[in-house]
Amino acid sequence: MATKGLLMVHTGRGKGKTTAALGLAFRTLGHGLPVCIIQFIKGTWKYGELTSAGRFADLLEFHVVGEGFTWKSQDPEADRRAAREGWDLARQRIEAGRHHLIILDEFTYVLNFKMVDEQEAIACIKNRAAAMHLVVTGRDAPVSLLDVADLVTEMREVKHPFKSGIRAQRGIEF
Amino acid sequence: MATKGLLMVHTGRGKGKTTAALGLAFRTLGHGLPVCIIQFIKGTWKYGELTSAGRFADLLEFHVVGEGFTWKSQDPEADRRAAREGWDLARQRIEAGRHHLIILDEFTYVLNFKMVDEQEAIACIKNRAAAMHLVVTGRDAPVSLLDVADLVTEMREVKHPFKSGIRAQRGIEF
Repeated sequence: MATKGLLMVHTGRGKGKTTAALGLAFRTLGHGLPVCIIQFIKGTWKYGELTSAGRFADLLEFHVVGEGFTWKSQDPEADRRAAREGWDLARQRIEAGRHHLIILDEFTYVLNFKMVDEQEAIACIKNRAAAMHLVVTGRDAPVSLLDVADLVTEMREVKHPFKSGIRAQRGIEF
Repeated sequence: MATKGLLMVHTGRGKGKTTAALGLAFRTLGHGLPVCIIQFIKGTWKYGELTSAGRFADLLEFHVVGEGFTWKSQDPEADRRAAREGWDLARQRIEAGRHHLIILDEFTYVLNFKMVDEQEAIACIKNRAAAMHLVVTGRDAPVSLLDVADLVTEMREVKHPFKSGIRAQRGIEF
């Protein structure tokens, strides 16, 4: 059977979008297949998984876009530049076709804030190698992305501990 | 600051419930903290993550409940027995309090099919060590569980490739 790479989107306001992508990464690494993760917002991937990722240095390529890149930045131009550089790297990796799975973590923000050309990005994602899986995470996935996706999951927040005043926990929230 | 363990529930009909739990497991393992996973339905955790898990043999305890345990079984009594044995093991591990994170994968089925005493299970989960995180995954989480949960995420299926005839992919679906 010919394999077909899936475009998967994890969206919605609930937890689990990035964590589920991380789970897919470890699943793929467990098969001995190469994975590339590009994180568009600093801090989404935490100390814990970065240390775990270290055990797969042979198979996993991991990038954080921009140093200290955040959405509360005092310097929006620097952020746009970082986002564009991140996308240039992503496009290179997508076009190279060497990875079994590429994760564009929080990439919906980059699209929604018009930091890269949406049509160009969607076309690149769509034209990737037939067997390559791609995961895009982030809130408010744009319609253009949903249209070309094979699998879309909305993580819906039903109950959240921060609302009842519990603080972030080591090993879970950071 | 005193740490408080969270009870997290991943429910809903979409993908990502188990995968997000897997992501939390790797996050926790990356901190060098012990994790116990008990899988109540065979096949939810796939070859890929089991191989990845092997790299954390020092910290990760992993159990599959029953050999060939499925919901299409010809022998419902054997299934109930397996579910009860699985819960006995889970209760032991919860009461022992040695793990930083315990994952009861697909445990909602066990509750919904009344394979274990729901009140007893909820009480045990609620009375766990204060710092222990617990994740329960599965569709149709019962209200009794949602009531005591700190964090509930519903994974909602928006679009699914199997509906358009694409088969399972190595490294993603199995």
